[in-house]
Amino acid sequence: MELLAATLASLALGTPALAQGTAFMSTPLETASSLSAADIQSVSPALGRYAKEDVADGLWQRPQLSRRDRSLVTVAILIARNQTLDLLHYINLALDSGVTPRELSETITHLAFYAGWPNAMTAIAVTKDIFTQRKIGPDQLPAASPQLMPLNEQAEATRVASVQRLLGTAAPGLDQYTTDPLFKDVWLRPDLSPRDRSLVTITSLMANGQVAQLAGHLNRALDNGLTQEQAGEVVTQIAFYAGWPNAFSAGPVVAEVFKGRSN
Amino acid sequence: MELLAATLASLALGTPALAQGTAFMSTPLETASSLSAADIQSVSPALGRYAKEDVADGLWQRPQLSRRDRSLVTVAILIARNQTLDLLHYINLALDSGVTPRELSETITHLAFYAGWPNAMTAIAVTKDIFTQRKIGPDQLPAASPQLMPLNEQAEATRVASVQRLLGTAAPGLDQYTTDPLFKDVWLRPDLSPRDRSLVTITSLMANGQVAQLAGHLNRALDNGLTQEQAGEVVTQIAFYAGWPNAFSAGPVVAEVFKGRSN
Amino acid sequence: MELLAATLASLALGTPALAQGTAFMSTPLETASSLSAADIQSVSPALGRYAKEDVADGLWQRPQLSRRDRSLVTVAILIARNQTLDLLHYINLALDSGVTPRELSETITHLAFYAGWPNAMTAIAVTKDIFTQRKIGPDQLPAASPQLMPLNEQAEATRVASVQRLLGTAAPGLDQYTTDPLFKDVWLRPDLSPRDRSLVTITSLMANGQVAQLAGHLNRALDNGLTQEQAGEVVTQIAFYAGWPNAFSAGPVVAEVFKGRSN
Repeated sequence: MELLAATLASLALGTPALAQGTAFMSTPLETASSLSAADIQSVSPALGRYAKEDVADGLWQRPQLSRRDRSLVTVAILIARNQTLDLLHYINLALDSGVTPRELSETITHLAFYAGWPNAMTAIAVTKDIFTQRKIGPDQLPAASPQLMPLNEQAEATRVASVQRLLGTAAPGLDQYTTDPLFKDVWLRPDLSPRDRSLVTITSLMANGQVAQLAGHLNRALDNGLTQEQAGEVVTQIAFYAGWPNAFSAGPVVAEVFKGRSN
Repeated sequence: MELLAATLASLALGTPALAQGTAFMSTPLETASSLSAADIQSVSPALGRYAKEDVADGLWQRPQLSRRDRSLVTVAILIARNQTLDLLHYINLALDSGVTPRELSETITHLAFYAGWPNAMTAIAVTKDIFTQRKIGPDQLPAASPQLMPLNEQAEATRVASVQRLLGTAAPGLDQYTTDPLFKDVWLRPDLSPRDRSLVTITSLMANGQVAQLAGHLNRALDNGLTQEQAGEVVTQIAFYAGWPNAFSAGPVVAEVFKGRSN
Repeated sequence: MELLAATLASLALGTPALAQGTAFMSTPLETASSLSAADIQSVSPALGRYAKEDVADGLWQRPQLSRRDRSLVTVAILIARNQTLDLLHYINLALDSGVTPRELSETITHLAFYAGWPNAMTAIAVTKDIFTQRKIGPDQLPAASPQLMPLNEQAEATRVASVQRLLGTAAPGLDQYTTDPLFKDVWLRPDLSPRDRSLVTITSLMANGQVAQLAGHLNRALDNGLTQEQAGEVVTQIAFYAGWPNAFSAGPVVAEVFKGRSN
C-alpha cells in the first residue's frame, strides 16, 4: 500500500499549481504533465529535455492553434483516452487559457457521446474537484435544457440518409439515439460553438485511431469554421499526446479531405 | 495528495448502494455511473439530464435486451476498455440483475483472452471486494477444471484451417494457444453458455473497434442462439458505453452479416 | 472510500516482492500479475490455473524469446495500453530479467512518442518509486543529450519521401517533429539498441491494433536484427497481454512481411 499511496501522493503533489493552492493563477507548461520536472528526470532525463525543448517551448508556441484551442484539444485527447493523471494538469491549463467552465462542461458532455459515457464520468470525477477549488458553481455552468440553436434541416436529412445506407434496419436503437439526443439536442446546445464541437469531435476520433468516421466529421468541422491550418495542427498535437501512429493514421485522411475541397 | 484522495473518496462514496452497505439489495440506474447525480450535475447538468431521460428511462428500458443481458454487455464493455470507475457500479448492477457470480467469473476469465490478461486482473481487483462484501465464496464460483462441454469437431476444423490461412507459420505460439486453452478449454467451460460467451466476445470486439474479427464472431454468436434483434441492440449499448464511433464502425459489419444470413 | 482504499491496498500488497521489500531479488511469475494467486482465485479459479499452466509454465518458458526480451515486450504492451496495475509487477520483472535501468528509461522515452506522452508519464509515476526502492540514481540513467549514433542518410531520405507522399502539406508540424526529434534524435540515442527500439515499437503498434504502421516498422525491425522467429513470438505475447483480437490483426501483416522478404 505504501508504494502505491506514495505514487498517488506524488501524482497529486506533482501538480505544482494545485499543491500551492494557486490553480487559478497560472498552470506552468514546463513539464507537459501533472508530474514535476524532478519526477520526470528521475526516470527519463531525455523526456525532461523534450518536455521543455519540443513540447513547452516548441509545440505549444506554434501559432497554428491558439493556446486556448490547443489546451481544449489536449483535454479532449485525454478524455477520449481516459487518461486521468494528466487530465488534472490540462484541465487547469485549459481554464487558465480561456476555455470557460461552460465550454469545458459542454466538452465533457459532448465526449460522453463520442468517447463513451464512462470516459465522461472519469472526467467529471477529476473536474468536480477543480471546480470546487476554483469556486466554479452552477451559475457558471450551462443549463441542462437551454434554448437550442436551430437545426440545419438539409444537413440533417443528408445525415439520416447516410446512416440509413450504413445500418439499414440492423440497429434501430442506434438510429433513434443518433437523431435524438445526439443531433437534435447535443449538437444544438449553445454553450459550445459548432466549430468547437467539431474540433473536439475530430480530436477524439484521431486520438483513438477511429479514422473511419474522420472524413465526414472533418468536412463538417471545416464547414463549421475550423481552418485547414488548424485541422492540420490538431494532427501535430495528436502526435505528441496520443502517439505518432494515431497522427499518421489521421494525416492521410486529413490530406485527402483537403484535396477533395480544393477541387 | 488531498485532491486525489478526495476524488477517490468521492468515487467510492458516489456508489450509493455500496456506501450504504446494501449493495446486495438494488443498484440504482439513475446516474448510469458510480458517480452520484449531484456529482454529475456539478460539472455537467446536461449529462445529469441525459443519464435519466436517455440512459436510465430510455436505453435500459428497451425490450430488445433483457436487463440481465444488458448489464452483462455493459460489464463486458467496461472490462474490455479497462474502465475501473464505473465497473464497480455495473458489476453490482449485473449481480442484482440476474448475472450469477459463476457467470461473472467466467466472463472475466473469457475476457482475459479477448481483451487481454491485464484487463482481467483489473476486473478481478474490483470484483474481489464486491464478492467479499456480498459474501460470495468459492462454493459460488466455477471449478478451475470442470467437466468440459463437447467440442464441435467440424467447427473446430474449419477454425483451424482459417487460422492456418491467416497466419501460415508466422506465429506458431499463437496457433498453439488458440487451440488450447482458448478453443479446447475456455470456450467449452460449462458455467457460461456458448450464447453468453459469444455475447461478451462480440461486445468486447465492438467496444475496442476491432471490427476485423467481428463478422466471424457474430456469425458464431447467431449460431449459438443470440438473435439478430439482440445483436443489433448490443450496437446501441456500445454507442452509449463505448462511444458513437465504435457503434458506427460495428453497425455496417452487423448489417452485412445479417444480410449474408438472409440469402 | 473504504472499498476503494481496500482495493488499492490489495493491489499493492498483491505484489509479493515489493511487500516483502525484496523487489530487487526475484519477481515471481506465478500469477502473471501484480495480484496474488489468492486474489485471482477468489474471483476466477480458472485464471488461477491458466496463470500457472499456460502463462508462467507455458508462454514464459518458450525459447523463441529470451526472458529479458519477453519482459521488455510485456512492459511495452502495458505502457502502450496505459495499464498501471500490472506495470508495477512487470517493470520489476524486467529489471530482474536483465533489462537495465538505462534500457527501461529509454523504452519509456521511446514510447512517449509511439504511445503518447501521457502514457509515458504514467509509466514514470510507477517507475519512479521502483527506482527509489532499488536505489537506482542518475548515474544509472541515460544522459539527456548523449552522443548520438550516426544517421543512416539513405534510410532517412526514403522515410522523408514516404511521409511526404502520405501527408503532403496537410500537417507541417507533424513533418517537422517526425524528423526532429523523432528520427534525428530519439532513434539515434545510444542507450537502447536499434533492435530493441524496433522491438518496443512493433510491440506498441500491435498492442493497440495499429496495423497500418506495422509493416513498415516490422521491416525496419528485421533490418535492425530482430529475427522472424522473435517477431512471430511477439505476436504470441500480444495475444495474452493485449488480447487475441490484436494478435489476430497483427498476425496476417507479420506473415505478409515475412513472405515479402523471402521473395
